[in-house]
Amino acid sequence: MLMQSSVLFSSKPAWVKAQYSTSPVDTNPMAATVPGPGPKWAQKTITLPPHRRGCHLVTSQILKEIRPDLSEFKCGLAHLFLQHTSASLTINENYDSDVRDDTETFLNKIVPEGRSAPWKHTLEGPDDMPAHIKSSMFGCALTVPITDGKLNMGTWQGIWLCEHRDAPTARKVVVTLNGI
Amino acid sequence: MLMQSSVLFSSKPAWVKAQYSTSPVDTNPMAATVPGPGPKWAQKTITLPPHRRGCHLVTSQILKEIRPDLSEFKCGLAHLFLQHTSASLTINENYDSDVRDDTETFLNKIVPEGRSAPWKHTLEGPDDMPAHIKSSMFGCALTVPITDGKLNMGTWQGIWLCEHRDAPTARKVVVTLNGI
Amino acid sequence: MLMQSSVLFSSKPAWVKAQYSTSPVDTNPMAATVPGPGPKWAQKTITLPPHRRGCHLVTSQILKEIRPDLSEFKCGLAHLFLQHTSASLTINENYDSDVRDDTETFLNKIVPEGRSAPWKHTLEGPDDMPAHIKSSMFGCALTVPITDGKLNMGTWQGIWLCEHRDAPTARKVVVTLNGI
Repeated sequence: MLMQSSVLFSSKPAWVKAQYSTSPVDTNPMAATVPGPGPKWAQKTITLPPHRRGCHLVTSQILKEIRPDLSEFKCGLAHLFLQHTSASLTINENYDSDVRDDTETFLNKIVPEGRSAPWKHTLEGPDDMPAHIKSSMFGCALTVPITDGKLNMGTWQGIWLCEHRDAPTARKVVVTLNGI
Repeated sequence: MLMQSSVLFSSKPAWVKAQYSTSPVDTNPMAATVPGPGPKWAQKTITLPPHRRGCHLVTSQILKEIRPDLSEFKCGLAHLFLQHTSASLTINENYDSDVRDDTETFLNKIVPEGRSAPWKHTLEGPDDMPAHIKSSMFGCALTVPITDGKLNMGTWQGIWLCEHRDAPTARKVVVTLNGI
Repeated sequence: MLMQSSVLFSSKPAWVKAQYSTSPVDTNPMAATVPGPGPKWAQKTITLPPHRRGCHLVTSQILKEIRPDLSEFKCGLAHLFLQHTSASLTINENYDSDVRDDTETFLNKIVPEGRSAPWKHTLEGPDDMPAHIKSSMFGCALTVPITDGKLNMGTWQGIWLCEHRDAPTARKVVVTLNGI
């Protein structure tokens, strides 16, 4: 076989490295002894059920959809892309629901809504323009490292779906996994 | 040939999957019948012409520069990186220009400018420090999934360039495409 | 050998392109003459020493950890992921420290702290809930293009670590490099 497989170099801190060489087989003595996988791509669209206005921890909902595929990646990146402009994805504290409630309080405090608000775009309701602004503040996409088949987040990190509209709506997320 | 090509697995929802195997040819019966492309990288720097202070929909300007190359990717990620610290890139509503105007109104409302502002960094003008803050609020980079040769955004999503300086300036964006 | 190596197409602006073909060797005349590297992945966790509350330029600290590996990539993406929920990573001005101080002033101005603050989550101190909010405002991850072995940032761009807690803490960053 002609592709060189994953090689591990140790250092402090250690890099996990993989290169897919184009060396001809006769200059590639490791190939026969260390097969290993090549680069992989996986992509699908998942749907998160409607959530009430506010911030919600959705790590487990997302992992339920992608875990079997995620487990095939030793090293890589997971990209989550929310296909909407009135909700957002962010990574924050995964334990105390008060943190999610306080974040919603903050967003409502700095983005005025209703009569006092200066918005021109009001056709879709008083909560619509504030929702667009909040979506750009937190963003609609996340990229998380994959290590040994898992999302390599910190102990206290979780994935939040922030629903900025009053009317709960199902939300689509395009998940793209890339790695080795 | 020794590389295994794109394989499609169906499920609900379906994953699009591709793996480049290092299996020796004799264990790779599909290879001869399903060649298909391997992983690809493409990168270039594009220049967006000067835009007045405010939020601007630039999806079509960007697609004009990258569409032919984008169309070569069945599955992947497109990364857009604005090389500036007084403008930003965000994804938001692509239809009503009032949404862009209201977003500019919001940014000017929460980031004070002029005499009332507490900034120390004023050498480059009263709009400069607020521009830096707005740039970090919305960010200077976007990653968008590529599916079947197109940016896989939602129906109402578009790419915005937010120009935070008073003096319109051409802005450089490094575009990196990666996929299969 | 069966893999086709990096090919450069010139245009205005020029794309740097690379494709790893699955074409059988007899249809791949370039292979023997243009070997070149295949796709590569490298990942490690680095630790940034404790920084006082505020915004700090950490480009050189990060490059010190990754430069030798970064130099192996002709074209790719560098992903930095902060494994914490009370600090953030952002890209902004790399020259005048007043810009970092003014940004910290802004964050403290819009996220109330102490008696006047409406937060429910106060067990970990008055600076904790504001820190979580600031972390989602600026985000905990960055993706930067790699070109010719270097981070391809603009002249005035630098990587900032924003420490939102009063008590300085060491912060972990998972760095993932992917490219050719």
